[in-house]
Amino acid sequence: MAFGWIDEQAELRRRAGLVRTLRPRPAGTPLLDLASNDYLGLARHPEVTEGAARAARTWGGGATGSRLVTGTTELHAELERELADFCGFEAALVFSSGYAANLAAVTALAPHGSLIVSDAGNHASLIDGCRLARGATQVVAHRDPDAVRKALDGHEGPAVAVSDTVFSVDGDAAPLAALAEACREHGAGLVLDDAHGLGVLGDGGRGAPHAAGIAGAEDVVVTVTLSKSLGSQGGAVLGTGRVIAHLVNAARTFIFDTGLAPAAAGAALSALRLLRREPGRAARASEVARELHARLTAVGLEAVRPDAAVVSVRAPSPEQAVGWAADCRAAGLSVGCFRPPSVPDGVSRLRLTARADLSGAEIERAVRVIGDTRP
Amino acid sequence: MAFGWIDEQAELRRRAGLVRTLRPRPAGTPLLDLASNDYLGLARHPEVTEGAARAARTWGGGATGSRLVTGTTELHAELERELADFCGFEAALVFSSGYAANLAAVTALAPHGSLIVSDAGNHASLIDGCRLARGATQVVAHRDPDAVRKALDGHEGPAVAVSDTVFSVDGDAAPLAALAEACREHGAGLVLDDAHGLGVLGDGGRGAPHAAGIAGAEDVVVTVTLSKSLGSQGGAVLGTGRVIAHLVNAARTFIFDTGLAPAAAGAALSALRLLRREPGRAARASEVARELHARLTAVGLEAVRPDAAVVSVRAPSPEQAVGWAADCRAAGLSVGCFRPPSVPDGVSRLRLTARADLSGAEIERAVRVIGDTRP
Ligand SMILES: Cc1ncc(COP(=O)(O)O)c(C=O)c1O
Ligand SMILES: Cc1ncc(COP(=O)(O)O)c(C=O)c1O
Repeated sequence: MAFGWIDEQAELRRRAGLVRTLRPRPAGTPLLDLASNDYLGLARHPEVTEGAARAARTWGGGATGSRLVTGTTELHAELERELADFCGFEAALVFSSGYAANLAAVTALAPHGSLIVSDAGNHASLIDGCRLARGATQVVAHRDPDAVRKALDGHEGPAVAVSDTVFSVDGDAAPLAALAEACREHGAGLVLDDAHGLGVLGDGGRGAPHAAGIAGAEDVVVTVTLSKSLGSQGGAVLGTGRVIAHLVNAARTFIFDTGLAPAAAGAALSALRLLRREPGRAARASEVARELHARLTAVGLEAVRPDAAVVSVRAPSPEQAVGWAADCRAAGLSVGCFRPPSVPDGVSRLRLTARADLSGAEIERAVRVIGDTRP
Repeated sequence: MAFGWIDEQAELRRRAGLVRTLRPRPAGTPLLDLASNDYLGLARHPEVTEGAARAARTWGGGATGSRLVTGTTELHAELERELADFCGFEAALVFSSGYAANLAAVTALAPHGSLIVSDAGNHASLIDGCRLARGATQVVAHRDPDAVRKALDGHEGPAVAVSDTVFSVDGDAAPLAALAEACREHGAGLVLDDAHGLGVLGDGGRGAPHAAGIAGAEDVVVTVTLSKSLGSQGGAVLGTGRVIAHLVNAARTFIFDTGLAPAAAGAALSALRLLRREPGRAARASEVARELHARLTAVGLEAVRPDAAVVSVRAPSPEQAVGWAADCRAAGLSVGCFRPPSVPDGVSRLRLTARADLSGAEIERAVRVIGDTRP
């Protein structure tokens, strides 16, 4: 029978306690949210939801075609201009998701004969980009500029190093300035995924590359998502006009995908403008993360020191991680739970996100619940 | 210099007359649209745009996380139930794009050691799915069940055949019943991309697999997009509950991607309900396509007989295709222009889409403009 082998895999998953199921959430929930990536608390902000509603009314429910045919509206162009300007780049190109933006950046910038040097902790979308690209991939140690240097050494032809700026599982940051230097020594490009940096790091949330002083550099390309700090959906690639024009002509997830829905573009643009007006939101997210970390550590939990707005807490086993998250939930707190195969090192964790709009009392309550329910 | 090689590629493209640029469109345009994939004319329908606006207000600008963490709302679940029911499947799973849905279906259903038999005319997203999958891919002749049979012959282990139902370039249909038979003889699964069939083919727009009597079969998996007939953004995979549960656990573009924005889910759900209430829209799209084809052929143009709502007209060369499309545009008509490298066979075409809401006068005008501007 055609898909019989699926049952065997399902059975293995069941035995390992690794079955995932969906839990649809209602519109209003009393749960305290430390699980979403809505770092600035903007997804439900009336300016953002009105931005979405207005765009849908003005431009329609969908973009109606590929960006190269009918799918580029003036709204897309406006979002691209403002995103590029905010992050300190010459140009930007918007995609239907951050995932698609990463596939595009890696595949289009790593042609046949090129070398991709990829951090071992990179996000799945960057890894899939490496797999799809025509270039050869070499995976190097996590956050290790010297390993990048060594991998680039002696390679002839185009090369890029690829890294998250803030790694999604542990929330630790990549050494951007050192990575840029290693790449420059070898004439290699640097592709950075700032999904968890935009809106949190850098001056007013301009992102990790901006904070590291490498935004806008000719040899640096940055991808971002509109789905986290900007409370919407979609992704973008930021770079020189030359790199962006290249993507328009070469990136398959740009050419063969319907343009981002106007509502998502409108929501992201509204969120970006709000962030410009209220730059303090960015720093507040990191501040909340540091406070969470300090309090969790004070009650004896093993948490990674946060470089941005993600706080990761170790759990003893996948089963206990799941149980812990469920107990938190029963106590009114929603937390993320990462376990194999979604973690590169096999270590299960609770993953907490520090929203900028968490109050002191909410932080206190979250820490109490996590501490009380520890396995 | 890191990205120096890009300039050489840009120069080659320029010389070949294959440079693509973006042309942002305004919200209101006097152009007659035969270029979008808005087959039923629903993208601007007030029920659809209100569906988007209402969803953004109720649920927020974004889904805020992976579908497995915070990104599944009751709205997503509702859309999945109604889509599955409409298309005749047990279950459905919604993705951020049709592209992501195709990557998911192919990669999750073609494990290590499996065989993928892929039609030579398949969409880029299916091809990328084949490239990403752990299974081995064999590309077979276009619309050829015997070639599929031959490729499956003698293979041990899991196998799937993968095909568009309606091919995006020429609008020709795959022989679904014969493909299903070839797969069944070999115990192989069949993965069909119904991006251009949903809303157009089958009873009331239930899609090509429904029309072929294979919807809901245990060994058939169908992907659809929400971005064409349903006037929104997003994609879905339809299959048995078992297959869908497998995707939830195994598909990387599901697990590691933010959930579809509520506005897009809301717009698609409104469009689906509208189509249920007004099933005649589906047949009308094919009728318009047949009329366009007949009239274009009558004025001596070489057009492919349409199996759905896409009408493809041959152009003598890429340059002439671009010139022809530009001349149409100058005369008030927006048409698609497909040319290398977006066409598998190197033949350039005008690509016309037959919207269900085109009037007789509009069809007449379109044909007159296309005929008058022929190269
Ligand atoms: C580091 C990183 N990159 C890319 C993505 C993909 O972005 P999106 O969800 O907007 O497709 C994510 C998360 O979803 C992420 O965590
Ligand atoms: C046949 C086919 N499959 C899949 C897709 C991708 O769907 P989406 O644009 O919704 O990502 C498209 C077009 O964009 C298509 O034409």
